[in-house]
Amino acid sequence: MLAAITNASLGDDVYNEDPTVSRLEALAAAMLGKEAAALMPSGTMANLVAMMSHCPRGAEVLVGDETDIYNYEAGGASVLGGLVLHPVKTQPDGRLALADLAQAIRDPNDEQCAPAGLICLENTHNRCGGVVLPLSYLAEVRRFATERGLPVHMDGARVFNAACALDVPVSRVTQYADSVQFCLSKGLSAPIGSMLVGSQAFIKSAKRLRKMLGGGMRQAGIIAAAGVVALEQMVGRLAEDHVHARRLAAGLQEMPGIQLDLSTVQTNIVIFRVTDERFSWQSFLSALKQRGVRMGELGYGRVRAVTHYGISESDVDATLSAVADVLRTGP
Amino acid sequence: MLAAITNASLGDDVYNEDPTVSRLEALAAAMLGKEAAALMPSGTMANLVAMMSHCPRGAEVLVGDETDIYNYEAGGASVLGGLVLHPVKTQPDGRLALADLAQAIRDPNDEQCAPAGLICLENTHNRCGGVVLPLSYLAEVRRFATERGLPVHMDGARVFNAACALDVPVSRVTQYADSVQFCLSKGLSAPIGSMLVGSQAFIKSAKRLRKMLGGGMRQAGIIAAAGVVALEQMVGRLAEDHVHARRLAAGLQEMPGIQLDLSTVQTNIVIFRVTDERFSWQSFLSALKQRGVRMGELGYGRVRAVTHYGISESDVDATLSAVADVLRTGP
Amino acid sequence: MLAAITNASLGDDVYNEDPTVSRLEALAAAMLGKEAAALMPSGTMANLVAMMSHCPRGAEVLVGDETDIYNYEAGGASVLGGLVLHPVKTQPDGRLALADLAQAIRDPNDEQCAPAGLICLENTHNRCGGVVLPLSYLAEVRRFATERGLPVHMDGARVFNAACALDVPVSRVTQYADSVQFCLSKGLSAPIGSMLVGSQAFIKSAKRLRKMLGGGMRQAGIIAAAGVVALEQMVGRLAEDHVHARRLAAGLQEMPGIQLDLSTVQTNIVIFRVTDERFSWQSFLSALKQRGVRMGELGYGRVRAVTHYGISESDVDATLSAVADVLRTGP
Amino acid sequence: MLAAITNASLGDDVYNEDPTVSRLEALAAAMLGKEAAALMPSGTMANLVAMMSHCPRGAEVLVGDETDIYNYEAGGASVLGGLVLHPVKTQPDGRLALADLAQAIRDPNDEQCAPAGLICLENTHNRCGGVVLPLSYLAEVRRFATERGLPVHMDGARVFNAACALDVPVSRVTQYADSVQFCLSKGLSAPIGSMLVGSQAFIKSAKRLRKMLGGGMRQAGIIAAAGVVALEQMVGRLAEDHVHARRLAAGLQEMPGIQLDLSTVQTNIVIFRVTDERFSWQSFLSALKQRGVRMGELGYGRVRAVTHYGISESDVDATLSAVADVLRTGP
Repeated sequence: MLAAITNASLGDDVYNEDPTVSRLEALAAAMLGKEAAALMPSGTMANLVAMMSHCPRGAEVLVGDETDIYNYEAGGASVLGGLVLHPVKTQPDGRLALADLAQAIRDPNDEQCAPAGLICLENTHNRCGGVVLPLSYLAEVRRFATERGLPVHMDGARVFNAACALDVPVSRVTQYADSVQFCLSKGLSAPIGSMLVGSQAFIKSAKRLRKMLGGGMRQAGIIAAAGVVALEQMVGRLAEDHVHARRLAAGLQEMPGIQLDLSTVQTNIVIFRVTDERFSWQSFLSALKQRGVRMGELGYGRVRAVTHYGISESDVDATLSAVADVLRTGP
Repeated sequence: MLAAITNASLGDDVYNEDPTVSRLEALAAAMLGKEAAALMPSGTMANLVAMMSHCPRGAEVLVGDETDIYNYEAGGASVLGGLVLHPVKTQPDGRLALADLAQAIRDPNDEQCAPAGLICLENTHNRCGGVVLPLSYLAEVRRFATERGLPVHMDGARVFNAACALDVPVSRVTQYADSVQFCLSKGLSAPIGSMLVGSQAFIKSAKRLRKMLGGGMRQAGIIAAAGVVALEQMVGRLAEDHVHARRLAAGLQEMPGIQLDLSTVQTNIVIFRVTDERFSWQSFLSALKQRGVRMGELGYGRVRAVTHYGISESDVDATLSAVADVLRTGP
Repeated sequence: MLAAITNASLGDDVYNEDPTVSRLEALAAAMLGKEAAALMPSGTMANLVAMMSHCPRGAEVLVGDETDIYNYEAGGASVLGGLVLHPVKTQPDGRLALADLAQAIRDPNDEQCAPAGLICLENTHNRCGGVVLPLSYLAEVRRFATERGLPVHMDGARVFNAACALDVPVSRVTQYADSVQFCLSKGLSAPIGSMLVGSQAFIKSAKRLRKMLGGGMRQAGIIAAAGVVALEQMVGRLAEDHVHARRLAAGLQEMPGIQLDLSTVQTNIVIFRVTDERFSWQSFLSALKQRGVRMGELGYGRVRAVTHYGISESDVDATLSAVADVLRTGP
Repeated sequence: MLAAITNASLGDDVYNEDPTVSRLEALAAAMLGKEAAALMPSGTMANLVAMMSHCPRGAEVLVGDETDIYNYEAGGASVLGGLVLHPVKTQPDGRLALADLAQAIRDPNDEQCAPAGLICLENTHNRCGGVVLPLSYLAEVRRFATERGLPVHMDGARVFNAACALDVPVSRVTQYADSVQFCLSKGLSAPIGSMLVGSQAFIKSAKRLRKMLGGGMRQAGIIAAAGVVALEQMVGRLAEDHVHARRLAAGLQEMPGIQLDLSTVQTNIVIFRVTDERFSWQSFLSALKQRGVRMGELGYGRVRAVTHYGISESDVDATLSAVADVLRTGP
């Protein structure tokens, strides 16, 4: 990947003249089955731009209350974009119930109410433990949205993990959304960047907004070069991360003082709770860190571990040993 | 009241030179125990201005998910003010649980999160049936907010009804909030206008925002004149509305096909459901309207009746007869 | 007018049920030759709503640098509406040169540039001394805008003065604009309110925005009643104000120490400078105020006097005497 | 530089854990004499974040009408940040006259007016031909701003060129501004990125806004590595670009059909007009492009040529030959 960066053909992407960026955009659009794509400096900007492109000022964005958009993107759609974020209860499996979506759509003829403008889904769903939204559910939301004239945006930061878990081409997953964001970093291992895909008109609007937000980058080819490698060479190896995550989860589940629901371990994320009363999640994470293992917290005291490129089977086993040691030793 | 309008001394309030407005503002501030007040064309603007005055761009407003601010004000704080509306679950009695408020405050040091900027309460609580927030609860929220450095705004559109039900001066209710909005219309019977009260600095900022929003009115004295009468003569008679509401509720409760919880009838609002399966709420309201009685719907199919100046005991009895007739006749 | 207020039929305009408001809106639309109208609490809100209705987020509003919108409305279109105010040089006669407008329209295909969304004119033009835009100029701007797909909004706070000065029906003036704002207060003498007129779709959007901004007023009929009287009885008498303004200007022009261009005195505004070096504009206005005469400053040290209902010929003569006395006595 | 990218130590900059980014930020802050710095994906974002950090919602940003901020950044400060862009006439030498700045500051006590919140300067000034603002002028603006309690932001995309032309350390130039933006790309030759520098508190706020805008990048070290090289090795060679620009300008000036003011050629930008009437600027640029020479247009039909790393003396001479050939041949 670094070799690709070093050898990238560069141009000024602010004028759409960087050939490596163009190649990456074409590749991303083709893989996800959309007309066009735009390289963004981050998933946050890709999601923000998507919401602003789909919705005029004043609309409501229906978004799960446990999504990254609602919890980790500083409310940008409201603060910067003049949109209302309308959180909808997230089911434990990452779905938004259609009945809850229906309830969240306010009367479009009532001038006291902000009209719905967009439905956002997250797939895989980070705070639900990397779970995969079923294709049948995606089809239902698509039908629901179309009947109401609403577009669907998928925060697919890890959508390639979803496709891998379902063992289908990623375009089977993304066909149900008007626009999709996915990260070149995270599982796909590139250092920087996210892609936003959708129709030609949507991406044209998105590029305008990207420029305004300051996401237009000069010789973005150095980022795009890694992105091309990510799409060409890293997608196939995500299955390994999933195997590693299940191995980690299976090991953790057997330990006293750990509570873990194996059914949520569908991709590369493992979520569990430390029920050993000697520990808070803070003290548990701190003890792990001293042993060179890094995990995070995901709200409500839940601990999250992520497998990725560079985490081998033996790293998983070392992690299990470290956790066992922490639990044996105490905080 | 119309006589007061006709005889009002007028000036240009855009230059703070309307003596009737000044008198109204002084009166409102004094009654609610605050330093200053500003006349607003509507409660919506008063609430919007309050949120924008308290919060810098980018902050979150913690607000009940069943409040009028969240449901009937078109998301203006987000669309216009660059704020994030963060809905918090509303308890059936109109309270927001402190635990839920605590949960809703995001980590102020995490730059992924919009920091909390304000807590909003609604008192009396419209969609919960005009229920009154207990003084002890208000004191708890005040303490909670102060500990976290957060201001409290009270959407007190009907705060005089709350004070009347508690049989205390309204300043006892409003002492727990940094700012309060109340309506001169609604129960206080003036044709137009709401008051926003708070500190001198807060009201100074509010008047700037009012001007920007287009709420600065020229000879606003014609509105203010009615407002003075409302505050001087209409507050005392709210108890009648409450008696009428209880009479109405008691009568309704006895009817088959009506479901009503008397414990929520604390002020001038009566909420009930039509359980008679021949009716939808729409057909029920329509049948009532044909008999000259007007009620509304308040979400989830609940019917709302409001008593106010001009609704006498015999009007209540006529209403009960009309409902009985509707239920006897069918849709 | 006060009698009209007292006798007005009232309803709740938030639900479009105030008959007096409906009558006023129909009357205003008919007089200005537009499909529909909406009552606003102020001209500021009417202009803000017009800009937001015409323009999506991100557009530029081309507006004269000497207009009230640019100078006295706190930048609301940018602060609240996500629009860019693009000031265009104002000619001394209130016009914006077509060449300057053309220069101000940025390349719509360049994503570095905010695209133009609206042209705003002010007629009569306040800071230029109440001058009237010629019909031929309005026709030119109309053609220019249509060729570029841009709507035209007229800040016609005093558009009835323009029509009066031109001796044409006001619809002759307003035909060149897609939307027009005019004030019921100012020359038309109502205590409060402005009207926004335009197409049905435009006014529907405007009413949504009005509600969000907090300009939806309950029993707005008490304002509308005065507005109906203003439109039915006050339009015809504007010519008097113009006669009085010219009388005032003619008298002032003869005084040493006063500099005044009679050609700008076309309606009810008189602008002049105090060249007597003993005075600043502040000390001049202060000395006048002590003699019971009130004038204002309009930028660059220019003094503005306005004639209106209630200012008689003898009031004009008394004003001239007061000015003469001030100049004789010194500050 | 590519070697540096390949060998960079990486971490996750969203958590401030990328060591290469930290090194770049410390280096930039030290060189410009400020407390702290933040890496941004673009100069547009750096300027936007600076304006939003300095100004609360509703303030006016005084900015030259010929600046890149006003002309090429899509009005983001207004569209996204709730600020009013107040353009001030730019002098031909890139300065904003103090009298014009004073005139542009509206009465802070008048609630009709948006209060001034920031003065922005551009140095070197792109559209004025890369001219350098004199240190004495910067000191005057600093004094002017301090007296009025206003911060100063310098869009110093090319501030190292300014320092080079003045032959002073860049901190001498930046000492007069509270915050400065400069580009790692452009003259400093890095592929991507801009730096924003200022006080600790300012940069803390800037990083929050950067995250919200989507400018927080994961392994940003690959960008930062090139930035470190740019600051350590590319600053010293800017003088060459200036020599080349003067050589180019001197050659162009002698050609018939070219109008060029040598006094504006102070850094690495050459601006001229094609007065040969056979050409429009479009046909001139097109003819040049066919000969492998690329220049741009900068408004008002002015042609801009830029010298940079990789443009040698012989490239300059080849460019002069190409222009001569174009003028000889015609369009």
